[in-house]
Amino acid sequence: MTPVRKLVLLGTGLIGGSFALALKRARLVQHVVGVGRNPANLARALDLSVIDSASHDAADAVKDAEMVLLATPVGQMGRLMAGIAPVLAPDCIVTDGGSTKQDVAALYRTHLAGHLAHCVPGHPIAGSELSGAAAAQYGLFEGRRVVLTPLPETVADAVARTRELWQACGAEVFEMSAAEHDGIFAAVSHVPHLLSFAYMNALLDKREVAACLDFAATGFRDFTRIAGSHPDMWRDIALANRDAVAADLRANVTALQALIALVESEDAAALTAYIDRASKARTEWGDRSRKA
Amino acid sequence: MTPVRKLVLLGTGLIGGSFALALKRARLVQHVVGVGRNPANLARALDLSVIDSASHDAADAVKDAEMVLLATPVGQMGRLMAGIAPVLAPDCIVTDGGSTKQDVAALYRTHLAGHLAHCVPGHPIAGSELSGAAAAQYGLFEGRRVVLTPLPETVADAVARTRELWQACGAEVFEMSAAEHDGIFAAVSHVPHLLSFAYMNALLDKREVAACLDFAATGFRDFTRIAGSHPDMWRDIALANRDAVAADLRANVTALQALIALVESEDAAALTAYIDRASKARTEWGDRSRKA
Repeated sequence: MTPVRKLVLLGTGLIGGSFALALKRARLVQHVVGVGRNPANLARALDLSVIDSASHDAADAVKDAEMVLLATPVGQMGRLMAGIAPVLAPDCIVTDGGSTKQDVAALYRTHLAGHLAHCVPGHPIAGSELSGAAAAQYGLFEGRRVVLTPLPETVADAVARTRELWQACGAEVFEMSAAEHDGIFAAVSHVPHLLSFAYMNALLDKREVAACLDFAATGFRDFTRIAGSHPDMWRDIALANRDAVAADLRANVTALQALIALVESEDAAALTAYIDRASKARTEWGDRSRKA
Repeated sequence: MTPVRKLVLLGTGLIGGSFALALKRARLVQHVVGVGRNPANLARALDLSVIDSASHDAADAVKDAEMVLLATPVGQMGRLMAGIAPVLAPDCIVTDGGSTKQDVAALYRTHLAGHLAHCVPGHPIAGSELSGAAAAQYGLFEGRRVVLTPLPETVADAVARTRELWQACGAEVFEMSAAEHDGIFAAVSHVPHLLSFAYMNALLDKREVAACLDFAATGFRDFTRIAGSHPDMWRDIALANRDAVAADLRANVTALQALIALVESEDAAALTAYIDRASKARTEWGDRSRKA
């Protein structure tokens, strides 16, 4: 496998930084340029050798790059794509780490219409509440999954190159359509985050909230861990994937209303069946994912 | 502090077994009798020295006991109380580990009306998906909280004795009313469990459930950990605390409907504020509880 001559990170945070570190460890990148809006974060990335040079100018940075990774919140990607479009080398691979894929595909079409053959939308599944270059780590993608959602125009070579680099980071790589991706991640990622935010807000509206938080224990801790996630990122995700997200949130409202009816009617047998179905499925998932 | 001469566990599982082990380690109990319906579990408890003798007959076991801990699901406690009422020594302390306290108080009144001075309802806050005597551990209550909700009739000595024994297990002991307890734990324990069950059931209703579960990652894992909890126990809790639980579930439906409206109207500013409020509160709670 040949190393990437020049990799440009548009967004030098946890995802971009960890991708760069993993490729450096595998000796699969020669020079990494970090682009970002926060000078302190870029300085830290240089200090930690996450990147080899820093720039505030995306268009300048991507000249003669072999690969560009968009690793900002999705809300910033359109502007960045527009900025680099005029200066990209013809065969430069442009990929991204966005958590939603239909909207990112639309951004590629709008801003990089002449370059679609080398655009490889992607989503590394490696969440963390941490952010910034200082949180980047060599092993972040070790054993994790990366989903690629190539456009109909994307050439096989660009997909294969992106795939082999993610594999070199230790990730298992999957391909599916953007719509399939967004449906799946609405269900198992976006909606749990939004349910956790909604639960916290309902709790904060209670008169006894201080005593409640004082006695909150391990169940609360795990259930709400994702409620501590980054507001701008999750606003972008919720809006970008709003159809799938809203449909799944409505299904949760329906499931809750059924549950409230069982509790209020004191239907013990039906309530046991309701809980048992959820508990069995979760336990089986836990057993399977421990084995995997 | 004088050791308990004879402690009887009505229910020899995680909570009862761990209480016995912690008191044994502190040399604060001389003889532990385990009562239960599952012979294999009792045999295991004997093997592991969690208990010193076993019995299938609660009434026989509690004769001349100094303390009885009811450590079964709440749904079984009424029958057990009725069974032991005729044979309890006059000053035997009867306490319990039930997760709901208003309904348990009502059970004490119904079944142990002549013994209320020595009844000390309690709730050790030490959840686990594990159960059975084999899961019992010396340190389960180390640094955990125990809430006591004494009845108006309970004498101070019985409360003090129960408190000192829990403290000897490493727990911090609080007192509050049963109603206050149930309101707090509906909000931070019962409702998160029920939301997690409802979420799992909504997911299981999806056509793409297999692909969804296949890509579920760490956010899903933590958010749904409590969905793997014991169905009978959580049915009992939901029914026992149904008024507080139903009110909080309704508040969650309202919070979700507000969130759906923000997503569908694409109100980015209001959505950011909604998520930011939840995220800030959760992050502050995490910082506080790490320090504590």
